[in-house]
Amino acid sequence: MITGKNYIGYMLSEKGGKTYKTINPKLNVENSPTYYEATSEELETAMDLASKAFISYRDMPGKRRAQFLNAIADEILALDDLLIETYMSETGLPEGRAKGERGRTVGQMRMFANLIENDDWREPVVDLAAPDRAPLPKPDLRQMLIPLGPVVVFGASNFPLAYATAGGDTASALAAGCPVVVKSHPMHAGTGELVASAIVKAAKDTGMPEGVFSNLNSAGIEVGQQLVAHSKVKAVGFTGSIRGGRALFDIAGKRKEPIPVFAEMGSINPVIITQRALENRAEEIASTYAQSITLGTGQFCTNPGLLVAIESEELTNFSKDLGNKTAAIAPQPMLHPNIVAAYDRNGAAIINENETTLVAQYDGELPINYAQAKVVTVSGEAFLNNSNLQQEVFGPFSMLVQCANQDQMLAVIANFEGQLTGTIIAEEADYSSMAPLVQTLQSRVGRIVFNGVPTGVEVSSAMTHGGPYPASTDSRYTAVGSHAIKRWVRPFSFQDFPSELLPSMLHNK
Amino acid sequence: MITGKNYIGYMLSEKGGKTYKTINPKLNVENSPTYYEATSEELETAMDLASKAFISYRDMPGKRRAQFLNAIADEILALDDLLIETYMSETGLPEGRAKGERGRTVGQMRMFANLIENDDWREPVVDLAAPDRAPLPKPDLRQMLIPLGPVVVFGASNFPLAYATAGGDTASALAAGCPVVVKSHPMHAGTGELVASAIVKAAKDTGMPEGVFSNLNSAGIEVGQQLVAHSKVKAVGFTGSIRGGRALFDIAGKRKEPIPVFAEMGSINPVIITQRALENRAEEIASTYAQSITLGTGQFCTNPGLLVAIESEELTNFSKDLGNKTAAIAPQPMLHPNIVAAYDRNGAAIINENETTLVAQYDGELPINYAQAKVVTVSGEAFLNNSNLQQEVFGPFSMLVQCANQDQMLAVIANFEGQLTGTIIAEEADYSSMAPLVQTLQSRVGRIVFNGVPTGVEVSSAMTHGGPYPASTDSRYTAVGSHAIKRWVRPFSFQDFPSELLPSMLHNK
Repeated sequence: MITGKNYIGYMLSEKGGKTYKTINPKLNVENSPTYYEATSEELETAMDLASKAFISYRDMPGKRRAQFLNAIADEILALDDLLIETYMSETGLPEGRAKGERGRTVGQMRMFANLIENDDWREPVVDLAAPDRAPLPKPDLRQMLIPLGPVVVFGASNFPLAYATAGGDTASALAAGCPVVVKSHPMHAGTGELVASAIVKAAKDTGMPEGVFSNLNSAGIEVGQQLVAHSKVKAVGFTGSIRGGRALFDIAGKRKEPIPVFAEMGSINPVIITQRALENRAEEIASTYAQSITLGTGQFCTNPGLLVAIESEELTNFSKDLGNKTAAIAPQPMLHPNIVAAYDRNGAAIINENETTLVAQYDGELPINYAQAKVVTVSGEAFLNNSNLQQEVFGPFSMLVQCANQDQMLAVIANFEGQLTGTIIAEEADYSSMAPLVQTLQSRVGRIVFNGVPTGVEVSSAMTHGGPYPASTDSRYTAVGSHAIKRWVRPFSFQDFPSELLPSMLHNK
Repeated sequence: MITGKNYIGYMLSEKGGKTYKTINPKLNVENSPTYYEATSEELETAMDLASKAFISYRDMPGKRRAQFLNAIADEILALDDLLIETYMSETGLPEGRAKGERGRTVGQMRMFANLIENDDWREPVVDLAAPDRAPLPKPDLRQMLIPLGPVVVFGASNFPLAYATAGGDTASALAAGCPVVVKSHPMHAGTGELVASAIVKAAKDTGMPEGVFSNLNSAGIEVGQQLVAHSKVKAVGFTGSIRGGRALFDIAGKRKEPIPVFAEMGSINPVIITQRALENRAEEIASTYAQSITLGTGQFCTNPGLLVAIESEELTNFSKDLGNKTAAIAPQPMLHPNIVAAYDRNGAAIINENETTLVAQYDGELPINYAQAKVVTVSGEAFLNNSNLQQEVFGPFSMLVQCANQDQMLAVIANFEGQLTGTIIAEEADYSSMAPLVQTLQSRVGRIVFNGVPTGVEVSSAMTHGGPYPASTDSRYTAVGSHAIKRWVRPFSFQDFPSELLPSMLHNK
C-alpha cells in the first residue's frame, strides 16, 4: 500500500504541509496517491539515525550485510504486481521493461551480497615488520578498505528501479557498510515508496540498526540541497542531468568539509562508422541504429545521440535510410510531460542552428506525451565550430556528423566532451589502421563498444559506467558493476597493532 | 650547476622579469642564485608539450617507463654533494637528514619502477561473453586502469626531496603514464632545479617524449593558480597547508571541467595515552615524545601536536616531565623565516586562549630562525568547546588534553577534525576494553599507530597517508605507498573488442 509518507528510519512520517502527485504520462492523468514532502525536521531525524546506525553497521560482518541485501531482493520481488503496476503508471513504460528492470535491480543487489560474503573486496594488505632493518626498523602495516559514512542517493528519472531507491548506488553503499538516505525521485514517488518499504522490512527482519535506510520525498530541490550540505552526509551518488549533478557537486565542494559526489550525468554516446562498414552493411547498421535510437523512447543514458562518418555516396544513402527507418518506428510515451517538453525544446534548438539539416522525423499522429523521433545531419566542420551541437537531447534523437575526411573525423572525436561510451562500427580490413581512432576515442570516453550498440550496460566486474566530465564528475569510478563499491570506501592502515585488536581479515594466515 | 631557469620540457627558459632568491635559514642569509619566475607563455608551452607527450607516453609499455624512473633515481644520486649542499643551504636541515631523504626519494622512484614492470597494477579484468545467455546475450568486457593526463605537482616545504620535484606525487604520476608539471617550491628552488635537471636528463637518455616533465619557478601564487585552472591539466597533487590546498581544490572545483585535487594538508596527529600506560611507563613515554615532538624541528606532517589522557596524579607528573624534557632539547633552525614567524604566531594564539596553560618552553638562547619548543595543557572540556585549539602549530609544539573521564576522552576523540594519523599508547590489560576507543579514533584518521610515534611514514603497499578532511581533500586515496598511483588513473572498458586491437594485458591467457 502506498501511503505517500517518508520513511524516517523505520517510521512512516508526514510532518510537512507540502504535497505533490505523480503523473501517468501514457494516460496524461495524475495518479491518486498524495506525497508529503520531507521537512527539515524529518531530514535531521533521518541523518541522526543514519549517523548512529553507521556505528554498528560499519563493523558488521560482511555475511550479515549480505543477508540484508538478499532480503531486500526478496522483498522487492514480493511486492509483485503492485510494484509493476505502479512503475508502469508512473513512467508510461511497458510491462516487459518494468519486469526486466526489476530483474536487474534484484540481480545487482544479489551481486553485491555475493561480493561481500567474503572480505576480498576490502583489499586487505599485510606488510610484516622487519625490526632489524637498517637504518630504521620497518613497522608492521596492515591495510583494508573501510566505509565512509552515510551516503545520500539521488535516483534517475529513467530507471525508477535499477538506478533509484534500491539501485546500484544504494546497493553498493549498503554493501560497503554505509547507511543510505534516498532523495526520492518525484516522478516515481510511488515506485520509490514501495521499494523503500521492501528495504525497511528487510532491515527489520535481518536485525539492521534503525537508520540504515531512509527515504525522503521531495518535488523541489531544497531537500536535496540540504542533504548534500548536511555535515553528517559523507558522500553522494547521483544519476541525472548535467545541471542537476553539477549543482550538487558544487554544494559538496563548498562545504567546510568537502565530500565526494559521484554524479553520472549527460552523454551523447558517439558512434563512429567506417567507410568500409557503410560499403558492406549500411542497411543492417541503419536498422540496428533506428532501434537503438528509439529504444525505451531514447531515454537511456547510453542512447546513441551522435553518429560520425566520412562523406560519401554510401553515407548520403545511409543518412536517408536511417532517418526513414527511425521515423517509421511507432512512437511511445516519454516518462513525464516535463521530459517531453524538454525533448521538444532541446531538439528544436539543435534543428534551429543554421548548420543542421533535418533528415526525417516521425510524421504520423502523436498522442500527448509521446516523442517524435528525429534524425538530423551536420558537417564535420560545423560540428567542430559549434559546441551547442554537443548538447544532449534526451529522447529518440540522433545527429549524424558528416566529416570531410579522416583527419577531420579524428578532430571531431578529439573535440568530444567526456562521454560514458563510444562505439566503433568497422570491418576487419580497418583494424590494422585503427589505432589512432581507438586511442583518440579512448581519451574521451569510459567504455568503447565494438560493432554493437551502446545501449545495454552489463553488470560486470569489468564494466566502466562513468567517464570524463561531464559524463561523470569523477572518471576514476564506475556507477555500474562490482567496482562501484569503491566510491564509498577509503583505505585505512593499522600500524604495529596487537593481533586481538585487528579485524580478522588482517590476521596472519 | 644551478641556472635559476625554468625547465620547459627539455629547454632551460627565463622569459620573465620577476626574480627571487632562496634563504639559508641557519645563517639567515640569501643564497646566491637568482630564480626566474615562469611567465604565462612558458606555462602554456609546458602544458602544450605535456599534452602532446601524453599521447605517446600513456601507451608506452610499463617496462620502458620503469627504465625512465630508474634513470631518474640514478641521476639524482649522480648529483651527489651538490644536491646535499644545496638542500642544506635552503632548509637548515642537517646532512644526515638530507641524505636520508634522498635515499627515500630514490627508493620511492625505484619502488614505482618495480611496480610497473608488469601490468598487475592496472587491475586487468577479463569477463568473457556468454552469447547464449537469456533473455539477452552477455557481451565480452575487459577492463584496465588508464592514465588521466598531465598532472600538476606542488611539493611540500618540509620535504624538499621526498615530497617535491621527484617525490611521491611525481613518481606515482610518471609511473601511471601521466606527464608531470611541477610548480617548484620557492623555499628550495635550487634543490628543485637540480632534481628537475636529473629528471630531464633521464627523460632524454631513455627516449621519453619532450614535455613528459617540466619545472616552473614561482615565488607567488599566480603560476599555481593558472596551472590548476588550465584546461590541459587533468589532476593535481599537493602537499602543504590547509589554506593552500583548499584554495587549489576550490579552483579545480570551479573549472568548466572539474579535476581531482589530492591535497595532503594539516594534521595534529593526536596521541591517546591510557592511564595504565602512564602508571607503568610515564617517563619512557615522555622521553620518546619529547624526541618525536622536536624531530626535524617539529616540521613533519605527522608531528604529534596533541596528546590526550585522563586526569590523574600520574598525568600531572607526566605533563611536567614531558614539558621539561621537550624544553631541554637543543633548538634547531626552521625551514624559512616565514615558517618561524608562523610558528611563533600560531603558538602564541593557542597560548593566549584563556583555557590553556604553558607547561614549559625552551628558555636558553635562541638564534634567529630557530624554533622555541613548547608544551601546553588544556582541559578536555575546554578543548571540546573551542575549535581554535585544533589549529595546527607547525613546529615543535604539542598540547596535552586532560580529560575528566573516559567518556569525555571519547567525546574529545569523536570531535577531532580529520587527521593523517592517530596513536594509541596502551598496556595489554587495556586491550579487552579498547574497541570503542579504536573505533572512534578510526573514524577520524587514516592510520592508527599502536605503542609508537606517528612520525616516520613507511613507503609500503599497506600504508595510508591521507585521511578525512582536512588531513586530505579525498580520504579515498593515499599519498604514500604503491596505492598512491590510483590517484592518477581511471578504469576503462573494452566491449566485444577484436583481440588485435586489445592491449596485450587484456588478451586471453
